[in-house]
Amino acid sequence: MDWSTKIDTAVEAHRHQALDLLQRLVQTPSLAGSEAGCQEIIASYMRELGLDVDVWEPPDAELAAHPAFVPVGMSYQGRPNVVGIWRGTGGGRSLILNGHVDVVPTGAEETWQRSPWSGIFEDGKVFGRGSADMKGGLVSNLLAVTALQNAKLHLNGDLVLESVVDEESGGNGTLACIQRGYQGDGCIFTEPSGLTNVAISNRGAQFFRLIVPGQEGGVEYKHDLVNPINKAMELIQAVDAYSIYRESSVSHPLYDPYYNTKVPLAVCKINGGEWPSTVPSRCLLEGTIECLPGEDIHEVKEALKSYLLEWCQKDAWLKDHPIQVEWFGLWFDAAELKPEDPLVKGLVSAIEQVTGNSPIVAGAGGCDLRLPILYGNTPAVLFGPAGGMIHSTDEYVEFEQVVACAKILAVMAIHWCGLAE
Amino acid sequence: MDWSTKIDTAVEAHRHQALDLLQRLVQTPSLAGSEAGCQEIIASYMRELGLDVDVWEPPDAELAAHPAFVPVGMSYQGRPNVVGIWRGTGGGRSLILNGHVDVVPTGAEETWQRSPWSGIFEDGKVFGRGSADMKGGLVSNLLAVTALQNAKLHLNGDLVLESVVDEESGGNGTLACIQRGYQGDGCIFTEPSGLTNVAISNRGAQFFRLIVPGQEGGVEYKHDLVNPINKAMELIQAVDAYSIYRESSVSHPLYDPYYNTKVPLAVCKINGGEWPSTVPSRCLLEGTIECLPGEDIHEVKEALKSYLLEWCQKDAWLKDHPIQVEWFGLWFDAAELKPEDPLVKGLVSAIEQVTGNSPIVAGAGGCDLRLPILYGNTPAVLFGPAGGMIHSTDEYVEFEQVVACAKILAVMAIHWCGLAE
Repeated sequence: MDWSTKIDTAVEAHRHQALDLLQRLVQTPSLAGSEAGCQEIIASYMRELGLDVDVWEPPDAELAAHPAFVPVGMSYQGRPNVVGIWRGTGGGRSLILNGHVDVVPTGAEETWQRSPWSGIFEDGKVFGRGSADMKGGLVSNLLAVTALQNAKLHLNGDLVLESVVDEESGGNGTLACIQRGYQGDGCIFTEPSGLTNVAISNRGAQFFRLIVPGQEGGVEYKHDLVNPINKAMELIQAVDAYSIYRESSVSHPLYDPYYNTKVPLAVCKINGGEWPSTVPSRCLLEGTIECLPGEDIHEVKEALKSYLLEWCQKDAWLKDHPIQVEWFGLWFDAAELKPEDPLVKGLVSAIEQVTGNSPIVAGAGGCDLRLPILYGNTPAVLFGPAGGMIHSTDEYVEFEQVVACAKILAVMAIHWCGLAE
Repeated sequence: MDWSTKIDTAVEAHRHQALDLLQRLVQTPSLAGSEAGCQEIIASYMRELGLDVDVWEPPDAELAAHPAFVPVGMSYQGRPNVVGIWRGTGGGRSLILNGHVDVVPTGAEETWQRSPWSGIFEDGKVFGRGSADMKGGLVSNLLAVTALQNAKLHLNGDLVLESVVDEESGGNGTLACIQRGYQGDGCIFTEPSGLTNVAISNRGAQFFRLIVPGQEGGVEYKHDLVNPINKAMELIQAVDAYSIYRESSVSHPLYDPYYNTKVPLAVCKINGGEWPSTVPSRCLLEGTIECLPGEDIHEVKEALKSYLLEWCQKDAWLKDHPIQVEWFGLWFDAAELKPEDPLVKGLVSAIEQVTGNSPIVAGAGGCDLRLPILYGNTPAVLFGPAGGMIHSTDEYVEFEQVVACAKILAVMAIHWCGLAE
């Protein structure tokens, strides 16, 4: 039996174990700040595999001093990262497989067909918040190692499995791995790209907050007051106009052919008013602005600010009552690998070997890709099992993709790290 | 010394005591649900005056069964009403002086020049949340009785002082007084009309909530999603258009000459989104619609709903994803007295006697006026000391108006209730 067949057989032999693990992970909520339960499950699994397991809480002060730190306003106490190393026999390239356990909020739970934490398996899909983004990918990583071990296929290079916290808020979990010394010759983030896609770049991004002032008072004086909710509406229109301008003026070969929205920019959160019959004193808008590889997110965000302040200068109220523009929370740099990078070519080859098809190589949105590239001296790509309704209601992952991804990762590990004789 | 001079002298003799009382009341926060501290101060003061004092918590179930009940979602346990009766010698008409202790929220406290609870006295003004609306009026009521007693001017009819909870949420405190049997031959609400104005009607009102559905997902798909914040913006424009239609089509002689906004209708609260880079599933709007005396608030609100639903039928997204229109919280009927009502003529005469000027007789906005008129068989008007920045930052009351109002109320009491020989 050749090693390729051995991998296939070993993955198939562990698919039920993988499904069980995935369901347990989805059934264990891991919103930002509450990742510990999932991490304990993963660390236990790694220990059963005999990996060298490192569980640590990222040190807040050291992390905050890093230039790529994302201010999240939360401590990492009680929020451990988990890294498990399967030591190679020596001489090969190392490969990091990275996944995050944190998930985004569920939204109104009653809009879900089932509980966001059901983990139910139906029609080949596992449903629940985080099923696709990205507990499915984490399970692919673990299943790949499980299969290699059971097939008695040892590697020359180290295979390093990272299960990190706090990706959705910007990537401090992965950053903490780099700070702790986890670098490699290549890194795959098994985010839900789908198995026909490899992403080799990520957009930059910055969260923003606009504080729009109004003139507070009883609604019975509404025609003599300035309702900041109405002013906020106009600012949203200004942001939307700028978004269209951005779409019309930026270009990148990894994005142009693939994205209806090349550079996301939108207001996604609004909050104003305390009482239904009192015109409030202000209205808050929050959103995100992104940029393409080759753009500097700091320049892009300052250009947005200049535009908005100029826009306000044309408004009779806002020119004398300026809005506040604040940057907060998530931000990151754009970064990219070239399509000819050996890591990209190696992964494409592994995908072709397992699936018989060549993947699309394109750019991704906001993710941790930039961190090993820019700060860890480690080329990185993004590739993982497909799902649907990501960051939305009724999120799911295609379980067959979780299984197939594990096969591809195992093949890639042999290609990349080398098969020990 | 004639009784008019005696009143003037007695009020002046107690102005410092009244200022002290007003400052203590402003310094005692009394947001809805936390009125007990102020009520204790007022009940103590009434007991010192020798009034028959009745302190009771409105019974939730009995209150909720009344057709004029306003659903506020809070119990009245720990939120007592206080009524103090100064018994007349018999044979005269009774007069109720009503004030509320609850105050509206402060908004962002840092926007106030001083703490909303400072009660500071400066330039003839007492500053703080509730100073004008309406702890000033409550003090005028108490000062009027204090002065009459000290001037040894006894009345034939009963003078009934009501200090009620929960006016700002719709009037259940006053309603509870009516349910407890407190009716009279006339009632004055000493709300901050200013001493040149008597209000003899109130608008009807109804709070509404619009739930605007969107299509949730990551902002990277924004051009393929429906952002409910943007849809909410369009609905606000629809509400504003309807507001202008309402202004153009309703008319009432107590409102037409006096109000830039005859029938308030606006969205004053907005809330949507959980995460700055996730297009949310929905956006909530809250506001109020009001109507003039002669209009039925139930018909007016249903007409707004029909308009909004029709508006949505013209929208490609909303016609298949309908908004929800909810009525909640504050609502009330419009009500009015005629200008020739004896209570109105009596109060106008008392104002003329004390100030030398005839007040404007007009309509008021939302207030408790309707409750004694419609449910208590008691004619009612609204008249009290002027302030500024009501329901806004840096609220204040003109202390001289508090003093002058007390004189007018004392004169009115003698006119209305009769002076005992």
